[in-house]
Amino acid sequence: MLIGVDVGGTKMLGLAASIASVANDAGEVLSECRVPTPTAGEALIDSLVDLVRTLEHDCSQTASALAVGIAGLIDRSGVVRYSPHLADVVQFPLAERLRDALKCPVVVENDLTTATLAEARLGAGRGCRDLIMIGLGTGIGTKFLIDGVLVRGANGFAGEGGHMTVDRDGPPHVTGLAGAWEMFGSGSALGALARRMALDGSAPSLLAFAGAADDVTGETVAEALDDGDEGALMVLDAYAEQVAIGVANLIMVLDTQRVILGGGVSELGEPLRSRVEAAAQRLVMGAAYRPAVPVVLAELGERAGALGALLAAHDAAGRVENPAI
Amino acid sequence: MLIGVDVGGTKMLGLAASIASVANDAGEVLSECRVPTPTAGEALIDSLVDLVRTLEHDCSQTASALAVGIAGLIDRSGVVRYSPHLADVVQFPLAERLRDALKCPVVVENDLTTATLAEARLGAGRGCRDLIMIGLGTGIGTKFLIDGVLVRGANGFAGEGGHMTVDRDGPPHVTGLAGAWEMFGSGSALGALARRMALDGSAPSLLAFAGAADDVTGETVAEALDDGDEGALMVLDAYAEQVAIGVANLIMVLDTQRVILGGGVSELGEPLRSRVEAAAQRLVMGAAYRPAVPVVLAELGERAGALGALLAAHDAAGRVENPAI
Repeated sequence: MLIGVDVGGTKMLGLAASIASVANDAGEVLSECRVPTPTAGEALIDSLVDLVRTLEHDCSQTASALAVGIAGLIDRSGVVRYSPHLADVVQFPLAERLRDALKCPVVVENDLTTATLAEARLGAGRGCRDLIMIGLGTGIGTKFLIDGVLVRGANGFAGEGGHMTVDRDGPPHVTGLAGAWEMFGSGSALGALARRMALDGSAPSLLAFAGAADDVTGETVAEALDDGDEGALMVLDAYAEQVAIGVANLIMVLDTQRVILGGGVSELGEPLRSRVEAAAQRLVMGAAYRPAVPVVLAELGERAGALGALLAAHDAAGRVENPAI
Repeated sequence: MLIGVDVGGTKMLGLAASIASVANDAGEVLSECRVPTPTAGEALIDSLVDLVRTLEHDCSQTASALAVGIAGLIDRSGVVRYSPHLADVVQFPLAERLRDALKCPVVVENDLTTATLAEARLGAGRGCRDLIMIGLGTGIGTKFLIDGVLVRGANGFAGEGGHMTVDRDGPPHVTGLAGAWEMFGSGSALGALARRMALDGSAPSLLAFAGAADDVTGETVAEALDDGDEGALMVLDAYAEQVAIGVANLIMVLDTQRVILGGGVSELGEPLRSRVEAAAQRLVMGAAYRPAVPVVLAELGERAGALGALLAAHDAAGRVENPAI
């Protein structure tokens, strides 16, 4: 049995599946379990071990391998260098510590890496050897497959495209860097943009919809869109343009075949997808001389990270008999 | 015998080398030849065939394979979709036409692709499996090795990083796109920056050095630097910052081990290298949690493209016995 865990900002989702099911990309799950995410390293170890024991107990089987997806800079040896969700977990050898505790192969990956593995094999990227995954959430994460291989980079940090400077004279990000793409294209940026447009009169219907400008959020935009609100469509036009700037940058750098929009914001669905696709096509150099790149929506939703962790656990089990003992 | 040709904006450089020498990465050349670059497709075929015949005659040997490096969007089948140097060569099946004419394996690649192959195997990238090559010339080209493999992209167009938007509200590029990196970081941009700083009083010594503001160019900066001119150093400070914006973007996306600065501007040497390295390090997210990425200067100079074409010709000869007959 394999176990995959997605460590989110507030909760962790653990999935258990048979080796055969994962090997066949069936995506069938034997059991699942959600628990709160601790913020300190030792408590994280304890909670993850408990989660594994719970799933083992539920399935009456022992884990053959575990993979954990977690936000931030995770190096190739499974050390959490830094995680935005876990302020107290810095330079923490999570994989090694879990291996010691569980006595089975353990890999720790960036959470968007596992989500991309899942979309590539089970979801919106099936059959595609060159793709870019864009995770639109609080920030923006990016990952890519090149010629069928998920790019991890020299240290394991590849895909920090959300931090690309797209506005060299722009406002400083929390990182201290100016004009990062995620300041304009993330879910947080969508909420801020909607509030600004509600206030400055360019999307007045949104203000009416939410009641007060301060109450306008990304969710307001989603609800107003469902209602056919015109202001929400105008916000979406402006927002899609900002998303497309970074998408086009990545298409020009990587020359990909397909772009997958994932993360919470991608639940805006087709109205967002079609706008980002059209804008990115306009923003790519030499568009007349190259095929347009389809932009598609992620298919696996919030379980993508944990499903991908199952795939990573399978790879780990095959790669190393048992690195711990 | 193998032949590699670099098609530049005004001239073409052809090199001939023995298969054994290329196979051993010796970089030894049997003969070389320079001829003007024609602007039309048919004339280009004729000139390239003449160049091959000249080299064959010089060496009293027959070409086993030919590779041609050429600027622009070159697809994986060797069709020149578009080349900035060759306005009349559009959607032109250069590899196929040369194969028909020469009856030997022919590959056509982007010129920075061949230069990067050369630097990776024979020059500044030796021993490095993850690197980014930055060609600083009239524009900016970028190419990269990931895990030892040169990334060509789904169509062959990977590495158009010079067109990344780094200033979303910036001035329009000749492509029509706003705020492309090469508008601020290319050699042309260096000349424009130097003129601006000479005129606005921030680098007055450059004005004295050149005589008139209109005569200030990138070469003026190079000469003034050799003279220890303070204004030139101030221009270099400002220019390196612009180069570093795109370098940092690419480091964050790809998580590379080494950045190579090539192209004509890289002849500014150590003063440029050290400034770009320091600025890029400042502009990379999470710098405290990751190794600094060394920035090095290309080593092979203007022959890199043709030397890399020899390497590509060797790969082509090995890959396909003879695709034409």
